[in-house]
Amino acid sequence: MVRSLATCIFCKIIKGEIPSYKLVETEKVFSFLDIGPLAKGHALIIPKYHAEKFHEVPDEYLGDVLPAAKKIALALGAENYNLLQNNGRIAHQEVDHVHFHVIPKPAPGDAEGLVIGWPSQKPSMDELKALHAELITKL
Amino acid sequence: MVRSLATCIFCKIIKGEIPSYKLVETEKVFSFLDIGPLAKGHALIIPKYHAEKFHEVPDEYLGDVLPAAKKIALALGAENYNLLQNNGRIAHQEVDHVHFHVIPKPAPGDAEGLVIGWPSQKPSMDELKALHAELITKL
Repeated sequence: MVRSLATCIFCKIIKGEIPSYKLVETEKVFSFLDIGPLAKGHALIIPKYHAEKFHEVPDEYLGDVLPAAKKIALALGAENYNLLQNNGRIAHQEVDHVHFHVIPKPAPGDAEGLVIGWPSQKPSMDELKALHAELITKL
Repeated sequence: MVRSLATCIFCKIIKGEIPSYKLVETEKVFSFLDIGPLAKGHALIIPKYHAEKFHEVPDEYLGDVLPAAKKIALALGAENYNLLQNNGRIAHQEVDHVHFHVIPKPAPGDAEGLVIGWPSQKPSMDELKALHAELITKL
């Protein structure tokens, strides 16, 4: 690994210092079963580069993430599922090494799989236009 | 576009037949502001290939998704945020063209940003081992 952190549980999993139920591995990513799954088959894909948050991961470590997630989704054969990546405690991140969840949703409701609340807003077109004008100067 | 659907609202956005607040665009992906955001800055990244679900998207259309999401996250400057991609109605998919959400989480609680419920399970090591043995034959 180009960058790892000795105290990070996911860095230890990548290096084999902690065992895991490994799924897909490439030069840039590692994936394994979540041992506290939201549903059967819940898996994690992590870059082999220690970064706390998504925007800190170099692009070269991002390219293999979604193809690996796709392989896992196909192996799971799930019809309904969520891909999720959380940044920050208030956004439900619990381990400070970037990780992408593949979470099957076997049935509706709150018993298993990701439970989603969707408090959507209705901004005016003027508000969206102003935000857009600001963002494109930063892209 | 290699594959588009005349009746798909996101295919129409990619082709410019419906206006949008465009953010990053590459040969393979298109991104824009969500007009029903969960928080200010909520954006969508979509492949320029019509597929209903993630596992149907060719890998060549997946490679640009996360780098585009990263550019948007950096432009937003959000400390806390979620990346999310939903497959199937019961997993909260509302438009049947694969789309990845970048959703800022400005503050804790249920008022804005993605609201997450996490009904984690405690499978036995034997159960995980059996699932793993089954999955690796399919990867």
